[in-house]
Amino acid sequence: ALTGNVNIFYYAAMEEVTGAQLIAEALKTQNVEFMFGIVGVPIIEVAMAAQAAGIKYVGMRNEFVCESTKEMLFFCPGRVVSCCPPPPVSLADNTAITEAISVLKGAKRPLVIIGKGAAYGRAESALRALVEVSGLPFIPTPMGKGVLPDNHPNCVAAARSRALLQADVVLLLGARLNWILHFGLPPRFDPHVKVIQVDLCAEEMGNNVRPAVALLGDVNAVVTQLLESVRKDGWKYPFNTEWWSALKEKIAANAKISKALALQSAVPMNYYTVFHHISQLLPGDCVIVSEGANTMDIGRTMLNNSLPRHRLDAGTFGTMGVGLGFAIAAASVEKSQNTGRRVVCVEGDSAFGFSGMEVETMCRYNLPVIIIVVNNNGIYSGVDPETWKEMAKMGDLTTIAPPVTLLPEARYDEVMTAFGGRGFLVRTVEELRSALKLSLSDWERPSLLNVLIDPASDRKQQEFPWLTRSNL
Amino acid sequence: ALTGNVNIFYYAAMEEVTGAQLIAEALKTQNVEFMFGIVGVPIIEVAMAAQAAGIKYVGMRNEFVCESTKEMLFFCPGRVVSCCPPPPVSLADNTAITEAISVLKGAKRPLVIIGKGAAYGRAESALRALVEVSGLPFIPTPMGKGVLPDNHPNCVAAARSRALLQADVVLLLGARLNWILHFGLPPRFDPHVKVIQVDLCAEEMGNNVRPAVALLGDVNAVVTQLLESVRKDGWKYPFNTEWWSALKEKIAANAKISKALALQSAVPMNYYTVFHHISQLLPGDCVIVSEGANTMDIGRTMLNNSLPRHRLDAGTFGTMGVGLGFAIAAASVEKSQNTGRRVVCVEGDSAFGFSGMEVETMCRYNLPVIIIVVNNNGIYSGVDPETWKEMAKMGDLTTIAPPVTLLPEARYDEVMTAFGGRGFLVRTVEELRSALKLSLSDWERPSLLNVLIDPASDRKQQEFPWLTRSNL
Amino acid sequence: ALTGNVNIFYYAAMEEVTGAQLIAEALKTQNVEFMFGIVGVPIIEVAMAAQAAGIKYVGMRNEFVCESTKEMLFFCPGRVVSCCPPPPVSLADNTAITEAISVLKGAKRPLVIIGKGAAYGRAESALRALVEVSGLPFIPTPMGKGVLPDNHPNCVAAARSRALLQADVVLLLGARLNWILHFGLPPRFDPHVKVIQVDLCAEEMGNNVRPAVALLGDVNAVVTQLLESVRKDGWKYPFNTEWWSALKEKIAANAKISKALALQSAVPMNYYTVFHHISQLLPGDCVIVSEGANTMDIGRTMLNNSLPRHRLDAGTFGTMGVGLGFAIAAASVEKSQNTGRRVVCVEGDSAFGFSGMEVETMCRYNLPVIIIVVNNNGIYSGVDPETWKEMAKMGDLTTIAPPVTLLPEARYDEVMTAFGGRGFLVRTVEELRSALKLSLSDWERPSLLNVLIDPASDRKQQEFPWLTRSNL
Amino acid sequence: ALTGNVNIFYYAAMEEVTGAQLIAEALKTQNVEFMFGIVGVPIIEVAMAAQAAGIKYVGMRNEFVCESTKEMLFFCPGRVVSCCPPPPVSLADNTAITEAISVLKGAKRPLVIIGKGAAYGRAESALRALVEVSGLPFIPTPMGKGVLPDNHPNCVAAARSRALLQADVVLLLGARLNWILHFGLPPRFDPHVKVIQVDLCAEEMGNNVRPAVALLGDVNAVVTQLLESVRKDGWKYPFNTEWWSALKEKIAANAKISKALALQSAVPMNYYTVFHHISQLLPGDCVIVSEGANTMDIGRTMLNNSLPRHRLDAGTFGTMGVGLGFAIAAASVEKSQNTGRRVVCVEGDSAFGFSGMEVETMCRYNLPVIIIVVNNNGIYSGVDPETWKEMAKMGDLTTIAPPVTLLPEARYDEVMTAFGGRGFLVRTVEELRSALKLSLSDWERPSLLNVLIDPASDRKQQEFPWLTRSNL
Repeated sequence: ALTGNVNIFYYAAMEEVTGAQLIAEALKTQNVEFMFGIVGVPIIEVAMAAQAAGIKYVGMRNEFVCESTKEMLFFCPGRVVSCCPPPPVSLADNTAITEAISVLKGAKRPLVIIGKGAAYGRAESALRALVEVSGLPFIPTPMGKGVLPDNHPNCVAAARSRALLQADVVLLLGARLNWILHFGLPPRFDPHVKVIQVDLCAEEMGNNVRPAVALLGDVNAVVTQLLESVRKDGWKYPFNTEWWSALKEKIAANAKISKALALQSAVPMNYYTVFHHISQLLPGDCVIVSEGANTMDIGRTMLNNSLPRHRLDAGTFGTMGVGLGFAIAAASVEKSQNTGRRVVCVEGDSAFGFSGMEVETMCRYNLPVIIIVVNNNGIYSGVDPETWKEMAKMGDLTTIAPPVTLLPEARYDEVMTAFGGRGFLVRTVEELRSALKLSLSDWERPSLLNVLIDPASDRKQQEFPWLTRSNL
Repeated sequence: ALTGNVNIFYYAAMEEVTGAQLIAEALKTQNVEFMFGIVGVPIIEVAMAAQAAGIKYVGMRNEFVCESTKEMLFFCPGRVVSCCPPPPVSLADNTAITEAISVLKGAKRPLVIIGKGAAYGRAESALRALVEVSGLPFIPTPMGKGVLPDNHPNCVAAARSRALLQADVVLLLGARLNWILHFGLPPRFDPHVKVIQVDLCAEEMGNNVRPAVALLGDVNAVVTQLLESVRKDGWKYPFNTEWWSALKEKIAANAKISKALALQSAVPMNYYTVFHHISQLLPGDCVIVSEGANTMDIGRTMLNNSLPRHRLDAGTFGTMGVGLGFAIAAASVEKSQNTGRRVVCVEGDSAFGFSGMEVETMCRYNLPVIIIVVNNNGIYSGVDPETWKEMAKMGDLTTIAPPVTLLPEARYDEVMTAFGGRGFLVRTVEELRSALKLSLSDWERPSLLNVLIDPASDRKQQEFPWLTRSNL
Repeated sequence: ALTGNVNIFYYAAMEEVTGAQLIAEALKTQNVEFMFGIVGVPIIEVAMAAQAAGIKYVGMRNEFVCESTKEMLFFCPGRVVSCCPPPPVSLADNTAITEAISVLKGAKRPLVIIGKGAAYGRAESALRALVEVSGLPFIPTPMGKGVLPDNHPNCVAAARSRALLQADVVLLLGARLNWILHFGLPPRFDPHVKVIQVDLCAEEMGNNVRPAVALLGDVNAVVTQLLESVRKDGWKYPFNTEWWSALKEKIAANAKISKALALQSAVPMNYYTVFHHISQLLPGDCVIVSEGANTMDIGRTMLNNSLPRHRLDAGTFGTMGVGLGFAIAAASVEKSQNTGRRVVCVEGDSAFGFSGMEVETMCRYNLPVIIIVVNNNGIYSGVDPETWKEMAKMGDLTTIAPPVTLLPEARYDEVMTAFGGRGFLVRTVEELRSALKLSLSDWERPSLLNVLIDPASDRKQQEFPWLTRSNL
Repeated sequence: ALTGNVNIFYYAAMEEVTGAQLIAEALKTQNVEFMFGIVGVPIIEVAMAAQAAGIKYVGMRNEFVCESTKEMLFFCPGRVVSCCPPPPVSLADNTAITEAISVLKGAKRPLVIIGKGAAYGRAESALRALVEVSGLPFIPTPMGKGVLPDNHPNCVAAARSRALLQADVVLLLGARLNWILHFGLPPRFDPHVKVIQVDLCAEEMGNNVRPAVALLGDVNAVVTQLLESVRKDGWKYPFNTEWWSALKEKIAANAKISKALALQSAVPMNYYTVFHHISQLLPGDCVIVSEGANTMDIGRTMLNNSLPRHRLDAGTFGTMGVGLGFAIAAASVEKSQNTGRRVVCVEGDSAFGFSGMEVETMCRYNLPVIIIVVNNNGIYSGVDPETWKEMAKMGDLTTIAPPVTLLPEARYDEVMTAFGGRGFLVRTVEELRSALKLSLSDWERPSLLNVLIDPASDRKQQEFPWLTRSNL
């Protein structure tokens, strides 16, 4: 699909141009606005040609992180005129739509799952109408968060496990039944659940679970078809059902537990306390980038999104080290477009280590990213400084230190100040709130909050262990 | 998408079953009716388990040919209840449909190209209605032949080069702009041609030529959408245009040349004479399998198809050696379903050599395939027997024989009789007609007509050389 | 390692030459004498340029078979001056040689295994001296046959299983411990066997069995080193050992069984009778090509080789369909060099089917290959004609015919006569001897002996089943 | 070649062991002493099992860096008892040795090139004898440095370009003619140069340049063969030749230029000044790790090695980001074996950024690595702080900052102090000497010297541009 380049090569044949200029022109023709890279022979010439062509060049520190900036292709707002034609839109078969409506109407415990496909497909308006007209409860997948606001009354994310387990009909919108959704199988799903699968990729249909109805097409177009059918039909799932009661009850119970944890005032803090206060202070339209183990898992439930395409995380493959690249790309775009939106990067301390040197890039380009390192000295969990000192006395640490432990009280904040950014060492709620407010007020420089928490802090008790395997 | 297998593996865990039985059961669950293979360790067990499970096993002679039988998956008539759900159907966006109709209405020299995607998609009924309601001229691609009958009044295949070159709007239905369609580029297409591309694969859109309108969806569904729009609109492309006159004139001129060649009575015969008489005698509903260079090229223009999915040839990659495998698979199905349809395999002599030993398979299973070897002693062209003898006297043939030449007067018919089939050596029109009639009357055994033609026989003069390259 | 081509490309830059000419010249510079291929665009031009450059072109019928002709690169006698430098020779470390000699001297039941690496490495003279000076018993691998004559007094191939199982020291010369040598593991080898491994590839050392001594180097050079050491040392393994007695005894017992089978006069014949008579008539210097299941297995034990690099078979991967390609390549070379050596191709009927159409190639170039199809109507075993007819009456053969069965009494001889070669249908010893004598007397045409044997004929009872797996 | 594992799997079958234990036991059996990794599911269990088995576990921060620790496999001193047998040794053919000696004796301008193969092959003793007995001049490749001491009187590395260009015979010892050696081609080599190639890999022979003599074998063994021949022959290349005079003259001239640059006292310093003083202070037996562009190139010529296998750099593929991984692995080994050897890591500032977070690993395990960041604010070159501030005022830095420029005055030293290591900001010769002395005196903690140099500092004028291409 490179027909757009014909003119460029024609032009090349007419005048003396370099390969680097050809590449730069080809990208410019595609309305590429930013190039993220690391120079060296022969990328220097390409980077210079890109700048000459009006493309902004952001020099990174490690190719691996650099790669992660690609995700922004999907998320950049507006990204208006483009050389490549827009992707063609396809609709689901009307018979299948009718069937889907019929299955939905027969549901006792229906659930909508909103995937990142709905975000990429910009289905938010149609989807909000569908949810509100139909009265259905929904949960988002991690990067589906924000397509509808997390605080929407129909959002039952706070009762996620219960909702997945007991739903008898699932409307799966641009999400895939992979490990993030426990493969759609018992013990996390009802073995008899009926799935209405909406996807733009025919080969995805029936992966792991055979759908009751397969709706092949663009997620926005298909949601619009469903909406029209529901409107015509006049059907609405009632709010006074046992299902809604059960979900609401579970949400309330979970909220109580989280709140109790969040309000604990002990030092070192726990995860819930940290996220509770962050959540209170973050502006509603900020872009949240997140990676880590517990940090990403708990942060997902505690940090709300209210806008689509405002969350970026370690994604389908759980790749660590992508966060700072995401943040740089997002901040470059927001700054360039003067949107007034902040980019906040919530990192586990181990995750931060994969690409922490990219803070130099943020400082170099004055990108006002706020990095919050939730620091428990470890991967999953660490040991406290006293225990660590004892171990060091006992002998060779390579022999006795738990493999999950990192250096206690590591000063990640000083990695930021080393390059001129703002750094904060945070141990208490007061320090956290004050540092975050100061960071939010500074639009000129990146900040890093090094939040020391209890190395033994953990997720609240879960019904199912992590990565539950199917018992089929 | 193997959810259907869960039960099988569950079953395997409960009872003592072998891996071979598991494979056989899994295939049977998918309603697989035939297995084509070559035994050896450990395939013997699989083949035996398949027979035990009620699957028919056809033992072949060479894995390569065996592979080709897979194409039948697409072509098998009816393949009624099935475990895998039918592929989901998607439709094109209605805005794009409206746009397509508008482009079509603006066309001065429109052309419909029917690809094998339309055959696979079973679009024949909707497509016939669309062509007849809209009055548009059409040409099929090689395996698109028969979706509409080749003798349909709107078929302009006999003016193919002219039609491709001068069309200003092309409606491309399930066909791809690869080498078979000269990449959609000059000198074989107008550089300003507008393409309305109908495909079920989004990634195909814009390959080689950027479409004026991209209609993403199931070809049958999209053709139905177009048909409805045209019907509502009431538009019809008039028959009294300059474009129709030009096409009809070219068709008549080409027919005159072909007819003159076909009626030549010299011995050895030429290609056109051979195909003319074959065409007269073949039943309208037979399955035509074809491979070769000239044999496939000329045969495509001279042998009509009137039913969809009744032609199998060397395909997109021009793979030689697939013909006999196709024929065995097709005949196995037709025989098993007692359809009364004949399978006729038209082969160049070089093409036949790739897998000629499979005639033993046909004889072994009494598959009444009719193989017609159009034998010019060569690839593209050969030398006559006298010249060959002279060359052999002159010295080492590896040094002087043209690389394209095969043994003159090779008795491919005796390769068939060696295994109990019928063989005919054919030199004249009378021998050809008589042998073909006898073969058609025999439902018990395969036949092979070894039709010796003039080694110098060639295609009639073409406007463009084979594999014209773009001058862009 | 293409430095030799620099001149060619320089030449190309100076004059107008085509890519085909460049390829032909490059091959000619490497002293390539034959090109085997199948024309088509753009190979025609290459083939013609090759002929123009003095390379002989042999047109084949199927790419797959064509590939197999490459093996001849290793086997062609002399293929004398060459542009590429000869491969560099390396020697084993002298300490390791001393160690090897010491291990050999400590052996009670030593065995030499001669692999095809010894053939490729042209180690025959040094090896014969080593075996004779040291008095060690040896067995060859399939393509190692003939490096020393099969009838050499030290050859214990007729007691192969016993020799492998009871040897306490194995000198492994250019052979690999893969499935052909049962991975060097129990139950086919003594678990405590000491292996002296001679190989030119360091990565091969220790595959499957850790060697007692690893001798890295050119097999001919290393054998020469061993020979010198043995000579200096004056050591010789005595002939009056229990080991020699046990081996001789087993050889005699096996010979008796084989002889009894070979002398059976029933019709249809069994494998041993057929091979016995073939063996008696074949000239000692003929090139034997072989493929099949039983045909290759039994033929290997019954057909002697007395010269190195005079046997080609289905090889390490047991690839069926290579035989006729090998035979064409070998016969092209022998004919071109006027060696007076015959090429005899011993094929199972199933194996012949993979590439049987290549008999046309043999006929086209008058290559006097003798093909002996040992025809049992099946793969491993078949059914007799009467049973087959009964099955055909009972119903659909695809449902009931054993997957291993081919058409009874198939006339493979007529596949040869169809192209002008000699064909013989052989059922008795007399017919076999007479047909083979006639074939051997004809130097102008290929022959095919279609030897119908008892479909129930099998190998004589084996101590171990085929493909014995290790019990470790 | 995993025969050693048989016992382990046997053991696994007998007792209840986990997969992680199996892996740990298998590695322990191979005498693996260290494991470098990053935990996560399921590596945690493997790491814990490794510790339990007595393997030291070093937790890293990024997989990419972790990979680089593998190089240590080659470099670990003493790698004494081991389960895998030592690699077999092979020798060159004696005829080829004789030929090589004859070519050497005919040389007017001979040159020995010592590659890292000579280091891996532990050829240092034999090689020193050969060079001294024969009187030949030599140069090392980057990782071949130290096989013989850089200050050996026969080392002509300081006249490298001249030596390569004018040599008429090259003895290539375990080095490959890739880009690092300019492919052995003009304009960097004499087109008629005769190469005596010593390599243990037959496939390498003749890559890029066809050797006059190919000596296939273990480099230590072959050098010993050459040494014996030279000794027997009594030949020695005289010291009073024009070639030696020319080389010595060039060395003196180059030394003068370097010295002039090294003695410049301006602030900011240039590369030569920095390396001159580092070189004076480093202990002779330290392990030097190096990566970067100018830093690695100039450092290679200015920092002497006197012991083999004491230098690790970006290697054949010039991979940036490996340095800190190398340093951690080397320091882990040296510390564990109490060798008293220091590991010094000389990094360009850009190179350091690829994996700078690994300083936390060094601090965590108290590895006394000394990192010297030669900081010119850029890749190849940077801009000075004043210019940078001007650019920042002018507009968006992504649009105007040279792609090669990094943040001026970045405090890499504070990245080290953030984790408890020692950090030094160095601007002058005095600061450099004092910081390096302090670092060398501290055996408990890692240090980082952030040496700010002139962003415009460059290599001294070179005869040939970087990556000269062949004009053939």
